[in-house]
Amino acid sequence: MSNILTLYDIASTVPGQAWSPNTTKARYALNFKGIPFKTVWVEHPDIEALCKKIGAKSTSATGLQYTLPVIHDPSTGAVVSDSIEIAQYLDATYPSLPRLIPAGTAALHYAFTDAHAATLGPLYAYALPATLLILNPAGQDYFRRTREKLLFGGRRLEDVTPTGDEHVVMWKKLQDGLDQVDGWISKNGSDSKYFMGEVMGYADITIGAYLRWAKVVLEKEKWEDILSWNGGRWANLMRDLEKYETVL
Amino acid sequence: MSNILTLYDIASTVPGQAWSPNTTKARYALNFKGIPFKTVWVEHPDIEALCKKIGAKSTSATGLQYTLPVIHDPSTGAVVSDSIEIAQYLDATYPSLPRLIPAGTAALHYAFTDAHAATLGPLYAYALPATLLILNPAGQDYFRRTREKLLFGGRRLEDVTPTGDEHVVMWKKLQDGLDQVDGWISKNGSDSKYFMGEVMGYADITIGAYLRWAKVVLEKEKWEDILSWNGGRWANLMRDLEKYETVL
Repeated sequence: MSNILTLYDIASTVPGQAWSPNTTKARYALNFKGIPFKTVWVEHPDIEALCKKIGAKSTSATGLQYTLPVIHDPSTGAVVSDSIEIAQYLDATYPSLPRLIPAGTAALHYAFTDAHAATLGPLYAYALPATLLILNPAGQDYFRRTREKLLFGGRRLEDVTPTGDEHVVMWKKLQDGLDQVDGWISKNGSDSKYFMGEVMGYADITIGAYLRWAKVVLEKEKWEDILSWNGGRWANLMRDLEKYETVL
Repeated sequence: MSNILTLYDIASTVPGQAWSPNTTKARYALNFKGIPFKTVWVEHPDIEALCKKIGAKSTSATGLQYTLPVIHDPSTGAVVSDSIEIAQYLDATYPSLPRLIPAGTAALHYAFTDAHAATLGPLYAYALPATLLILNPAGQDYFRRTREKLLFGGRRLEDVTPTGDEHVVMWKKLQDGLDQVDGWISKNGSDSKYFMGEVMGYADITIGAYLRWAKVVLEKEKWEDILSWNGGRWANLMRDLEKYETVL
């Protein structure tokens, strides 16, 4: 088993443990390409030491010095951080497997990555406080401390979930954001299933990973509301991605 | 000449008249594909009546009801508004000519369009007041009234150009924005010239059209500063686009 690729993911209390949208992108990517791997679960406070130990580079663009996913591929010795860089690495290293980011589309995928972050921004106020509830005690304090400081000006995570009128406005913003993504996809043609038309790729996996986070942590009622949007596009996407959810 | 495609563009006092970044995208697109066309120059206050007369649809997403570019293609009877929709129309109607938006990249190009707007946002505070100086009297009042209300909360255009410390901060933001675009392009490979690698396409034309606006309206010193950024990438892009600037 020692030459199987390792995906470092963030531990939780949910069955199967997987919840993080960023690590889910890497899991979807590996399963999409059909690359065997094993998952190693890491608690938040242990991420930095792990990354330093295995030589994973810092991803400080997020405001956090070290983040997961990280993969270690023993067949090349590569240690790769950051989900889109992992996708590029897997495409370059395993070119005969289905492409996540087809040749000539890397720049457009990076522009998409910056663009989609704005559309899904409203999800954070709901999903981050809810994530606290599924972490192990070892991760909760770290998660609270870093996210409250980085994203909410020190407000307690318990206090940031929008309620009342604020919820109505914020939830509509999330729907508007997904309308925007739906609008992009439909520019391939009104019956386009995926970002690149008939073939799934990294952009679909990215949106799907955030939606899966919503599915794992949000109340059932909110999740079902999302599934009803955009003519069922997100319900269809989640169904299409189910086969890539396998935790190995 | 009656079955030559018409590009409706916005008049000015500069030699050759062309300045608008949005209509420049359409001009680059037509010349890139090698489609013969003629330009009809329109003053700002006449845009709405023209669009209604020829059946050009509203592009209200910008906050302005009717905008140029619009093209009329007598070979199909089509009247198309909005530069990215014009690019898609030209690709679909003339499929044997070089593609602006290759098959399967429409959704990614629309995501790029939303993403690049944020990176080039700081240019507006410089270029919009400077544009006022190159318009004909017929256009100046309309341009001032619409832009001051839409973009600057009613502040006079003459007062929005950043100066002093505000300029230092805003100019750095513009540089950061172009750094971000440079970063996207370099994800194709460190020597990548264009968004899709070796072949120019709609995203390059888009960035080039905004840079050409800067070239036409900004002081020479500011323009030369931009040309010095990102290892000369923008100077190279402008040189590559020169052959598509022809006003027909």
